[in-house]
Amino acid sequence: MTTPAKSEKDRVVIFDTTLRDGEQCPGATMTHEEKLEVAALLDEMGVDIIEAGFPIASEGDFLAVNEIAKRSKNAVIAGLARAGQKDIDRCGEAIKPAKRGRIHTFISTSPVHMKWKLQMEPEKVLGMVVSSVTRARNYTDDVEWSAEDATRTEHDFLCRCVEAAIKAGAATINIPDTVGYTVPEEYFALIAMLHQRVPNADKARFSAHCHNDLGMAVANSLAGVRGGIRQIECTINGIGERAGNAALEEVVMAINVRNDVLPYWTNIDATMLTRASKLVAAVTSFPVQYNKAIVGRNAFAHESGIHQDGMLKHTQTYEIMTPESVGVKQTSLVMGKHSGRHAFSRKLEELGYKLAGNQLEDAFVRFKALADRKKHVYDEDIEALVDEEIATAQDRVKLVSLTVIAGTMGPQSATLTLDIDGHHQTVQSTGNGPVDATFNCIKQLIPNDSVLELYQVHAVTAGTDAQAEVSVRLAENGRAVTAKGADPDTLVASAKAYLGALNKLTARYHGAMATASRRIHSTDTI
Amino acid sequence: MTTPAKSEKDRVVIFDTTLRDGEQCPGATMTHEEKLEVAALLDEMGVDIIEAGFPIASEGDFLAVNEIAKRSKNAVIAGLARAGQKDIDRCGEAIKPAKRGRIHTFISTSPVHMKWKLQMEPEKVLGMVVSSVTRARNYTDDVEWSAEDATRTEHDFLCRCVEAAIKAGAATINIPDTVGYTVPEEYFALIAMLHQRVPNADKARFSAHCHNDLGMAVANSLAGVRGGIRQIECTINGIGERAGNAALEEVVMAINVRNDVLPYWTNIDATMLTRASKLVAAVTSFPVQYNKAIVGRNAFAHESGIHQDGMLKHTQTYEIMTPESVGVKQTSLVMGKHSGRHAFSRKLEELGYKLAGNQLEDAFVRFKALADRKKHVYDEDIEALVDEEIATAQDRVKLVSLTVIAGTMGPQSATLTLDIDGHHQTVQSTGNGPVDATFNCIKQLIPNDSVLELYQVHAVTAGTDAQAEVSVRLAENGRAVTAKGADPDTLVASAKAYLGALNKLTARYHGAMATASRRIHSTDTI
Repeated sequence: MTTPAKSEKDRVVIFDTTLRDGEQCPGATMTHEEKLEVAALLDEMGVDIIEAGFPIASEGDFLAVNEIAKRSKNAVIAGLARAGQKDIDRCGEAIKPAKRGRIHTFISTSPVHMKWKLQMEPEKVLGMVVSSVTRARNYTDDVEWSAEDATRTEHDFLCRCVEAAIKAGAATINIPDTVGYTVPEEYFALIAMLHQRVPNADKARFSAHCHNDLGMAVANSLAGVRGGIRQIECTINGIGERAGNAALEEVVMAINVRNDVLPYWTNIDATMLTRASKLVAAVTSFPVQYNKAIVGRNAFAHESGIHQDGMLKHTQTYEIMTPESVGVKQTSLVMGKHSGRHAFSRKLEELGYKLAGNQLEDAFVRFKALADRKKHVYDEDIEALVDEEIATAQDRVKLVSLTVIAGTMGPQSATLTLDIDGHHQTVQSTGNGPVDATFNCIKQLIPNDSVLELYQVHAVTAGTDAQAEVSVRLAENGRAVTAKGADPDTLVASAKAYLGALNKLTARYHGAMATASRRIHSTDTI
Repeated sequence: MTTPAKSEKDRVVIFDTTLRDGEQCPGATMTHEEKLEVAALLDEMGVDIIEAGFPIASEGDFLAVNEIAKRSKNAVIAGLARAGQKDIDRCGEAIKPAKRGRIHTFISTSPVHMKWKLQMEPEKVLGMVVSSVTRARNYTDDVEWSAEDATRTEHDFLCRCVEAAIKAGAATINIPDTVGYTVPEEYFALIAMLHQRVPNADKARFSAHCHNDLGMAVANSLAGVRGGIRQIECTINGIGERAGNAALEEVVMAINVRNDVLPYWTNIDATMLTRASKLVAAVTSFPVQYNKAIVGRNAFAHESGIHQDGMLKHTQTYEIMTPESVGVKQTSLVMGKHSGRHAFSRKLEELGYKLAGNQLEDAFVRFKALADRKKHVYDEDIEALVDEEIATAQDRVKLVSLTVIAGTMGPQSATLTLDIDGHHQTVQSTGNGPVDATFNCIKQLIPNDSVLELYQVHAVTAGTDAQAEVSVRLAENGRAVTAKGADPDTLVASAKAYLGALNKLTARYHGAMATASRRIHSTDTI
């Protein structure tokens, strides 16, 4: 798949912006802990640069960039900053603990942006390019400069800005297609033009940041590489503003699978792509469409009714990459009520979990309880069960019991007992539907001002006795958290998810963030 | 957006294969009625050719192609056929009622497919190209020939096959990227090569059929147009085998928005794209990812906290197309318990529904009942309510009442009364969770062998008193149907959805299809 000798000049650096451009899109907000979890996985899978947030945008963003900078093992940690001094200083402070930290500063260069958004003359913008890069260099040698809306910028002016940014000390020059507007030939020509006309172009690494508004972000990024780009900015599952960014998994696998026509390489461990996709889908509650390239559940599925030997033929004729190459595991062993502790523990290892002591014992007890109620316990059931086990270990509030009466006769009613800091409390309530009645009980016991932004139910596995997995997103003071609950009873799963989200809202770190405004300017983005 | 004078040579014909390649992917099966509904919408929106199915694959496919052929107003109706006589004859029969019918016949031309799948020598394959096109011409002048796996076919052999197909009478030559393998530059070069080397290339219209395994289906199709392609095969929402096909909405909008660099035109009414996307998502129960280009719910959404005047600025700086241009409507009027019959009827018209008499009266009664229970009734609530009204009008089995007791105490139990052909019947059952208990009641009253393949709950709108919309997919005898139910009580919505699916399974047309095998060979596809 890869070229025998990997030369540095053919290396495409992967800059992941799931935590910045991805997290910035409506509804994708992650908690502090979720950001750390995503960052750790990105670091482990070989992402070269993790853009961890926009430090001046909110206290939460600052804390996330700062903490990820402390924890990063290999990845460069970048923060975003506009061209102003305050932005750059705040960003410089946030990335300080990183072994290798980057300031990514940007300003708009297109006529429409300069006129309407910045309300500045081009010469003023050019001055800001130089001053922002110069100031950023006080904090780190690793400065990236972006020409926001570059694909709609006049070529002469873009050349002057790029030249000035490199001269001021920017090691990376990003040419974003901010509005998702370009097509591959045009983007290739733009990048090639810059390499030809900017005298000091060879002193910087050029970067692509393509949005997917017309469905061509990946193709545009790769066309850019042909023109001289050696860094691609992308996100897991392609999340991001509007139609999202180039999908990391597609960029990486296109280079791996078509290395004959795309003779480049990246540092990414592709077998971790599926895990990364699942994690990001879970923490954002953004479903991945079934036919999403690489990571959709149909990406390697063929119409049913295929015989085993037909499948062998099939693999050779229709698959250009194996499911294993992107980390899709085949279900090997279905568990049931007769499966013992040893089989369960082996299964957990196979699924990538390392539980020990009480956690393992608790998970096993819950597995047995589930197996008593459900004929086949699939990998997904066990994952849901263990994920919840891990998530609820530290919770202040726990579900003790719930009884609900529902149906067409209405009003639906619920009786709920919670363990709050060790004390049992019981309450009864009615509501518009059984979920509403259950949530009303919780609100009576734990008064709060949060707004329910999302309520989703997934069947974890097939069949009428499937476990239900419920996602709940709550927003309070402009900040949102998402939590999940799993149970064969949808209503119990709903209560667990709602309590999980409330627990997250009251958890450490969040206190600090709750009072900070979420975003300063929604219009600042690339 | 479009060129002042539209010349025929710049026209890109849109060939929609949502009902064939899309419907063929695992889980996307549609009922006969759903296929007719999708076809009617495609026809209305200006699709040039509708590929309605693969007539020899199943009785259901034959009936769908045949009925759509009868009903089509403007679109050419195509059926798929392998190179064998039986396939072509069956397809010819299916498309017979069409004003303009097309036979789309294909055979593999790549070394790996010829060796492993066909087990034929190239000369034999070349002979089949000629015989299949010749036979198809007995039924219609409009014959399309596809070189399956064309992008992995040797150029010399591909040229010979294309030349032979045109000579035998194929008016359209399709060059599929069956495995989703190519990149834009390469596909452009392939198409340009064919136009250069095939002596009679000017006698046919060339077509692209690109799969999205590496995320480049749209860019590849458009690169093909630059090389001489004038037909693009695509699907709504990009559904299709594995990672799907080029998305129709992305292809069309790329040509509309970037007409300066893509100086072509299509016949599609882009303002119907959103409706088409919603319909296909609903009948397949395939969710559209939030950041899907053009039709995702975030495609035109920007991070919250934007002031009204900021949004005006925003539109000019970040939007390359307006939401209205693809049919996204702004919510104008929130309804509540004080809204009268007149306001309700005006709202229905605004949403595109034409209800009269009893249907309007019934919908209004249900709207008032909902408004009593729910503070704000949004457009989505009304859509869910009316869609269900229309769907259940003909049903044999109706829900009368349901009472469920659920919670952590278990076992959960349900008491259900159904109206079956006018007679009330009541039953009680327990289950593993309240949904299972409810479904067990239904199974007791209506014994059946169907398997639950999918169970999904969506909150139609936000808030704890949101209506729930439940999708249920049932499979029986290799055939699957999907139905929805909406109610503020999730369990009532679940019962309605399950009953809706059972009603569909027993509906007209389905009897005929139930005994026919679903697909003959899953490996036959392009």
